[in-house]
Amino acid sequence: MEPNPDLKITLIGAGTIGLSFAAFHLNHLPSPSHLTIFDTRPDAARHVFENLPKFYSSSDTLPNLFEIKVVDSLEDAVKDADIIQESGPENLPFKQELWREVEKYAKKDGLLWSSTSGIPASQQCQDMVDRSRLLVVHPYNPPHIMPLLELVPSPSTSATVIERTRDFWAKRGRVPIHIKKEVTGFVANRLAFALLRESIHLVNEGVVTVKELDEIVQSSMGPRWAVAGPFKSYHAGGGPGGLEGFFANIGGTVQDCWTDSGQVNVGDGWEGKVFSEAKEAYGVVDTAERDTITRRVLEVIDEEKANKKV
Amino acid sequence: MEPNPDLKITLIGAGTIGLSFAAFHLNHLPSPSHLTIFDTRPDAARHVFENLPKFYSSSDTLPNLFEIKVVDSLEDAVKDADIIQESGPENLPFKQELWREVEKYAKKDGLLWSSTSGIPASQQCQDMVDRSRLLVVHPYNPPHIMPLLELVPSPSTSATVIERTRDFWAKRGRVPIHIKKEVTGFVANRLAFALLRESIHLVNEGVVTVKELDEIVQSSMGPRWAVAGPFKSYHAGGGPGGLEGFFANIGGTVQDCWTDSGQVNVGDGWEGKVFSEAKEAYGVVDTAERDTITRRVLEVIDEEKANKKV
Repeated sequence: MEPNPDLKITLIGAGTIGLSFAAFHLNHLPSPSHLTIFDTRPDAARHVFENLPKFYSSSDTLPNLFEIKVVDSLEDAVKDADIIQESGPENLPFKQELWREVEKYAKKDGLLWSSTSGIPASQQCQDMVDRSRLLVVHPYNPPHIMPLLELVPSPSTSATVIERTRDFWAKRGRVPIHIKKEVTGFVANRLAFALLRESIHLVNEGVVTVKELDEIVQSSMGPRWAVAGPFKSYHAGGGPGGLEGFFANIGGTVQDCWTDSGQVNVGDGWEGKVFSEAKEAYGVVDTAERDTITRRVLEVIDEEKANKKV
Repeated sequence: MEPNPDLKITLIGAGTIGLSFAAFHLNHLPSPSHLTIFDTRPDAARHVFENLPKFYSSSDTLPNLFEIKVVDSLEDAVKDADIIQESGPENLPFKQELWREVEKYAKKDGLLWSSTSGIPASQQCQDMVDRSRLLVVHPYNPPHIMPLLELVPSPSTSATVIERTRDFWAKRGRVPIHIKKEVTGFVANRLAFALLRESIHLVNEGVVTVKELDEIVQSSMGPRWAVAGPFKSYHAGGGPGGLEGFFANIGGTVQDCWTDSGQVNVGDGWEGKVFSEAKEAYGVVDTAERDTITRRVLEVIDEEKANKKV
């Protein structure tokens, strides 16, 4: 439960990401009345009450969603909030104007978080008077399930704000990681897209199908990396010599794979084959099923890691 | 248990991979006496009996290891075997000569498998009379735990041999995937190394540390890809439009990440920083702990997927 009984959170934007964050926060706030949602769509309250239950599984206890404050005035939405988290459109002018307005009404020490997957805080804050409170808090979708939060401050974000943000997520059992530079796409997506790029190349060359490639990942590096990330895995693979020993043993093979890698680009012509194989293999994916299994995987890892530390 | 009560397997090479395969096969063979191990090291039997128990966890029941036949004549090792699986040195002349010798003594319909991670069957088979029975069966380490087997035939491998090999692994609950071309590094390592390459770049640039990068992967794409591989995940992420919808929405960001990717090479000078961070973060990794957790993750996924299909 909430370590701070007075904490109030305001979410701006009630799309998929905003509602998923709402489900997460409701698990920790002392009462749904501590959550405010602002969204410009007509009949936003009805949208929230109808769609938020989709973020709960059948075994969860639903909070009283009608206690959530769904408001249509930005001033009312933000004036009492300790944390203001936006998950609005991925559009720079929208975000710049939003923060300029939010700043007029928000408490001076309120934390300002953007869920953007691509627009750096240093650009979003351009029209603000005090740029020290804003940073990107980028989730891995869906945020009510996945533990990762990438904290990406701008050079103007204060160290205190970064620390308070990290502390918020860590106290709630999440994995907040401070990204030290505003690199394109931040870290998680860059890594995933690097693997996706080689995946597309191999499917396009007819080495494996889309479905076979997924089966390969699901039965090898997926479960491995759920438990120990790539560096830890290869450090272990190098025996007593660690990562250095690993590269001494098979650095040649690693470089051969890098040299031979496909380096496809968007629009290169692989799209037809890859998209149609995905459609044929999966149709419409049941994400509820995927999420249920993912939750259990995360629970098991937490349990086992807790046991090992005892 | 073994679907074929007469099946006999011979392993050539009792290093880490060979012994891990031994532990796997012992779980399925009707008796340890159906397993033969050939290794040229002095006192090979003692080596096997001392080291094989390391591939069992404390809750496993150990078979009677002394029933395993550890022999020092290649002819004796292979003459009765239905499957001959080599996990010897990664050295082309060694493997070429081995198969030439094995062929002299082996049963005509015995399957010949190489665990190599890099030397294609088409090179290994050069000195053989009948090249149709040999293919690469590449595990993801450690093979007694990880489900993946990459089946990489040469152009000379017969379709029947590929099918019998696939059938063997599928019947024992594993995930055999037929790789259609002998690409450098096969598929799993190419994918993992592509992500590793970008990981090294980001650590070298000071964006995150080695340990932070691992935490990012462990709390996002690791657990996700344990359940649904990259294509399935992004196909789901595209909503009703599937993978095509995903690229229509954020193909620009994907390409920006690809264009900005680091493309480091071995020997570029990142080694000092990356190796020392890994050593500091992990020292010597407890792989037994990692393997115990990985087993439970794989069990949970199997259980959950079995439930969903009912």
